[in-house]
Amino acid sequence: MADGYASHFGIKNIPYGIAISSTRQQPQAVTRFGDEVIFLAELANHESFKSIRADVQPFFLNPTLNAFAAQTQEFHRDVRTAIQDALKANNYAASSENIKDVTLHLPVAIGDFTDYSASANHVLNAGEAIQGVRSFPPAFHKYPVGYAGRCSSIQLSNNPITRPLGQYVEDYTAAEKNIIFGPSRALDYELEVGAVVGRSVEAGTHLNAKDADHHIFGLVLVNDWSARDIQGLEMNPLGPFNGKNFGTSITPWIVTLEALKTHEVPAPERMGPVAPFMDDAGAVNYDIQLTGSITRNGKKTETCKVGFETMYWTFRHMLAHHTIGGCGLRTGDLIASGTVSGEKEHEHGCLLELTMNGKKPSKLDDGSELKYLADGDEVTYEGVIGDGSAGVGFGACFGIVKPARKV
Amino acid sequence: MADGYASHFGIKNIPYGIAISSTRQQPQAVTRFGDEVIFLAELANHESFKSIRADVQPFFLNPTLNAFAAQTQEFHRDVRTAIQDALKANNYAASSENIKDVTLHLPVAIGDFTDYSASANHVLNAGEAIQGVRSFPPAFHKYPVGYAGRCSSIQLSNNPITRPLGQYVEDYTAAEKNIIFGPSRALDYELEVGAVVGRSVEAGTHLNAKDADHHIFGLVLVNDWSARDIQGLEMNPLGPFNGKNFGTSITPWIVTLEALKTHEVPAPERMGPVAPFMDDAGAVNYDIQLTGSITRNGKKTETCKVGFETMYWTFRHMLAHHTIGGCGLRTGDLIASGTVSGEKEHEHGCLLELTMNGKKPSKLDDGSELKYLADGDEVTYEGVIGDGSAGVGFGACFGIVKPARKV
Repeated sequence: MADGYASHFGIKNIPYGIAISSTRQQPQAVTRFGDEVIFLAELANHESFKSIRADVQPFFLNPTLNAFAAQTQEFHRDVRTAIQDALKANNYAASSENIKDVTLHLPVAIGDFTDYSASANHVLNAGEAIQGVRSFPPAFHKYPVGYAGRCSSIQLSNNPITRPLGQYVEDYTAAEKNIIFGPSRALDYELEVGAVVGRSVEAGTHLNAKDADHHIFGLVLVNDWSARDIQGLEMNPLGPFNGKNFGTSITPWIVTLEALKTHEVPAPERMGPVAPFMDDAGAVNYDIQLTGSITRNGKKTETCKVGFETMYWTFRHMLAHHTIGGCGLRTGDLIASGTVSGEKEHEHGCLLELTMNGKKPSKLDDGSELKYLADGDEVTYEGVIGDGSAGVGFGACFGIVKPARKV
Repeated sequence: MADGYASHFGIKNIPYGIAISSTRQQPQAVTRFGDEVIFLAELANHESFKSIRADVQPFFLNPTLNAFAAQTQEFHRDVRTAIQDALKANNYAASSENIKDVTLHLPVAIGDFTDYSASANHVLNAGEAIQGVRSFPPAFHKYPVGYAGRCSSIQLSNNPITRPLGQYVEDYTAAEKNIIFGPSRALDYELEVGAVVGRSVEAGTHLNAKDADHHIFGLVLVNDWSARDIQGLEMNPLGPFNGKNFGTSITPWIVTLEALKTHEVPAPERMGPVAPFMDDAGAVNYDIQLTGSITRNGKKTETCKVGFETMYWTFRHMLAHHTIGGCGLRTGDLIASGTVSGEKEHEHGCLLELTMNGKKPSKLDDGSELKYLADGDEVTYEGVIGDGSAGVGFGACFGIVKPARKV
């Protein structure tokens, strides 16, 4: 069965991924057009590729997209055009298989994973849910606050997520903060968008925000699964660790900045002045509409619908802040935005916000109560450009919650 | 010129590293014996290796130690014995070069880097220096608090460290918390020890503390350079980021657990009960004596002398806590202890503690005042087993401070 996302992959998308099939057993570069997955090393025999000076096939035969992603924007533009021309000439049947007949792999080798907290609404909502106060961290108006995540925990959409074991406070409302060990009771999703670094940034140099697009290969959806009880106890003072490192899901298709740039939208107005390297008069987000749903007992309930245009800090700001101290970026690094959240309740990109850390339960369409995720819950997180008519989207980032291991 | 650490590398050490020389231009596995660096793929022709069933040469010809580190303890023990026998037979001249004639590389490819805060004294001292209060984070008696670090920032000893640029509060003592941009004014070192993961731990399984040694290949010294002003502003609420990710230095030689296990010392007594997976009646540290010095204007001043036996949480605890939620560990992962600090002032493993965040300046032997590191300061961080008579040590982790870039 196809996955139902053919409409996200029109001729204006041309995302990149890595796949194998029964007849192509070496992981290699693919794109997707409707429900067809096209093996690019084979498509590259088409005459539309003749005008590209470099030999593209070695890039496409790699088991990751890193070497390809590291190339120049000009090269990426030429390849994109060649692919589109070959598709328009309807000359791809021999190099393609239906989406149902391929197995997708992680698209890039990820050497470092950073997770930011770039949404002003998320910061205010999460603060209110946890501490009862809507306020910004002291630096929020100067730069996006971020932390390093766990690379080994990054998995592809469709892999299940196992409820983590850990230590947490038994009852935060009780006077006695008794710490117990067991399965998390507060498993959450975080709907985010991630940027994949293309051209690297050498350690000891930095990017100005306005120039940082040149180093972004494309975007993916990210579900940063979080165990709020484990995280709540460990955060002080070094930030998230076991509350996050048990699994992070990403979509298999990297949607390139070329596909997104006709869908730029201005970033929100600045709250105040920023340092020169962060200054970006043309700060842009993308018109990506994100939807989160929980399927429980066979019934799917939409729990979140929010636009990426709400993000206060853009990826350009995130890359600039990341590099200003001399930190290098390597091709394939994943830089995630943090939870995307709007102002309204239905725009909250995680359950911490939606249910006020479980204190204000919501109702799902099967009639059950929603505080946090239950075993068996399926989370479907979709992203598409605008109203979908552009035919550009990410498909879905999907995961089902498995019960905790017994110890 | 030799580096002055020949005495650390006796027959009971046999550390592993990666090196090249003018005649061996492919990075490959080496050990060190006195001032001789021995290329193991060549040494393995010695008859002492004949009894090892597996072919060791492919491991030694790899440009990293990962494949070798992933092998069993039994295999590592056999190889260690074979190397020692070949050295005792004085049969290594043809496969060795003097330390001054080789270039050392990072010994392993590091897929994830975790930094813990495992010293009770450091937690108390740092809290007092920053907030004026000696207290533990809420979970400290249950597990070591940790965070993910930046893999791309890890560099070998002898590489300089460039003072990072960043944003920080101009004057924390002023009522107005004005945020400015510029070179860090509070550059610090953190003297730590790091464990290199040997056999991997599959995601979705976990280690009990008492069994975790089987997954540690060996230890290195780690200097986790820190910009306290940048870190101080960004820590709330997601932990360290740009305050740390500009550089972390490690020693080139991995000293194996086999070399260390005759130098085990008991870990401090527990403050209270722990979860079953963290329980380790035989919790051990190692008798590693660590010395930190600053050389300024040609004069070397010892600023810290502390023993690793002071660490409250052991590496076994760190690995157990790391994996309990389902987080996998990959061969080559670096897991650092956090600053090693004793109770006394001269046992403080970072300047944040020693100078109380600059509020209580110290004096260096050249007569100058020490608050934080100055441009041109050289930090030498040495580690040796006990009083040195065992001939087992790490050599030094060295770095000179370069001025900030101009922007």
